Amino acid sequence: MKIVCLGSGNVATHFAQALKLAGADLIQVWSKTLANAEALANVLGSIATDDLSAINPHADLYLICVKDDAITDVTKHLSAVKGTVIHTSGATPLSVLSTSGFNDYGVIYPLQTFSKKQAVDFKKVPLCIEADNETTLLALKNLASGLSEEVHEISSEDRKLLHLAAVYACNFTNHLYHLAATLLKRNDLSFSLLKPLIMQTAEKVQGEALPISLQTGPAIRNDELTMQRHLELISDFPVLTEVYETLSKSIKKTYL
Amino acid sequence: MKIVCLGSGNVATHFAQALKLAGADLIQVWSKTLANAEALANVLGSIATDDLSAINPHADLYLICVKDDAITDVTKHLSAVKGTVIHTSGATPLSVLSTSGFNDYGVIYPLQTFSKKQAVDFKKVPLCIEADNETTLLALKNLASGLSEEVHEISSEDRKLLHLAAVYACNFTNHLYHLAATLLKRNDLSFSLLKPLIMQTAEKVQGEALPISLQTGPAIRNDELTMQRHLELISDFPVLTEVYETLSKSIKKTYL
Repeated sequence: MKIVCLGSGNVATHFAQALKLAGADLIQVWSKTLANAEALANVLGSIATDDLSAINPHADLYLICVKDDAITDVTKHLSAVKGTVIHTSGATPLSVLSTSGFNDYGVIYPLQTFSKKQAVDFKKVPLCIEADNETTLLALKNLASGLSEEVHEISSEDRKLLHLAAVYACNFTNHLYHLAATLLKRNDLSFSLLKPLIMQTAEKVQGEALPISLQTGPAIRNDELTMQRHLELISDFPVLTEVYETLSKSIKKTYL
Repeated sequence: MKIVCLGSGNVATHFAQALKLAGADLIQVWSKTLANAEALANVLGSIATDDLSAINPHADLYLICVKDDAITDVTKHLSAVKGTVIHTSGATPLSVLSTSGFNDYGVIYPLQTFSKKQAVDFKKVPLCIEADNETTLLALKNLASGLSEEVHEISSEDRKLLHLAAVYACNFTNHLYHLAATLLKRNDLSFSLLKPLIMQTAEKVQGEALPISLQTGPAIRNDELTMQRHLELISDFPVLTEVYETLSKSIKKTYL
């Protein structure tokens, strides 16, 4: 299978490497920054370009891994291609690909956080697939099943919701780690002290138990004295205070 | 070493089992609820009581693992003991033990989240120790080093801060997992889809990189369009909206 990868960021890097590992031929990498295209192309044994009009029209699959608001710009230059065109965005509906006259198009959204430097076991990444017709859906299902054990048919509407849920479970969570680190740094305490706790908090929800049954801390106990003491410790730190109050209130609303 | 365990909750269960594993003799377990004391005593091959006046006065160590506001009540009944008295609370200063006339007292605070049913590798649990004198500190250090590879001398003031940081990194984080689960449940989507993402988000901060360098999502990009779309999806869900707005604002303040 011949694939053109459009984009060279975190998703492109991990997705294209997983495809290569599964035996695909990455024939071209496009990025608006040539150096980035070349860096990824080198890893893939592929050819780099920064020219959308130079995209090879003879690939079987066009993998769009660009920022959400750049997807339409990229697809405009793919009108001549015969292969299947897919995007990888959680927040973007399938329909964004309907206006460019493609025969076959779809979505494979990997529900994971990627950094170029961080290894990810792609076999465990949930791949959310959608397509404009049954034949393409089946083809994407086969492709995705070669990359991951977790392949799910997900509509554009549900994918949007998953993407939002991921903001809570990943983006906001990482920010809480940062706020904890900020607090420790003020007293020259090492962030490393929190690492086992962070791992265990994530591991606890990997089994059958839902997070709602695993909640601990002063807010769920309605322990006003401890919460007051905590707020005194951060009284000169309005951002930490607002987050503390909002999340404690949300916990209390959930349980009390 | 003969140890009396006061309390039978999550911390008591894991701490006492780690002590037993390290060769200590758990001679007695007290809990205000006899059935709870008995359940833990059975696991430890120990004797249960719900009577504080029946506490064995001949132990080497008294391990207090009760709720913060019950520590003083418990210590009142330990005035006759000769052994070292320690509590395990993050939010409670060492000085709470100073009024009961103990010769040797201290703190071993395990910086981890414990549930009775969930296994924890105690060797990896950071143990924060403090004592009223150097001899006791050394004794606690030796004891703690037999239980965990992570033993740290931490003052009451710093321990209080660590405890607060843990609220962000564990309690609030788990609540974000719950809010994500709530969102998915509305559309009959499985929380399992988020589990690999949650693990990876925690794993990412286990290395050298600090959370501040790993932040992703619409807020750090100041992607107002995506944030507006997200808020529309939860417009009928005031709790989710408030958390979304507060954390997005905090992220923007951190980076922009």
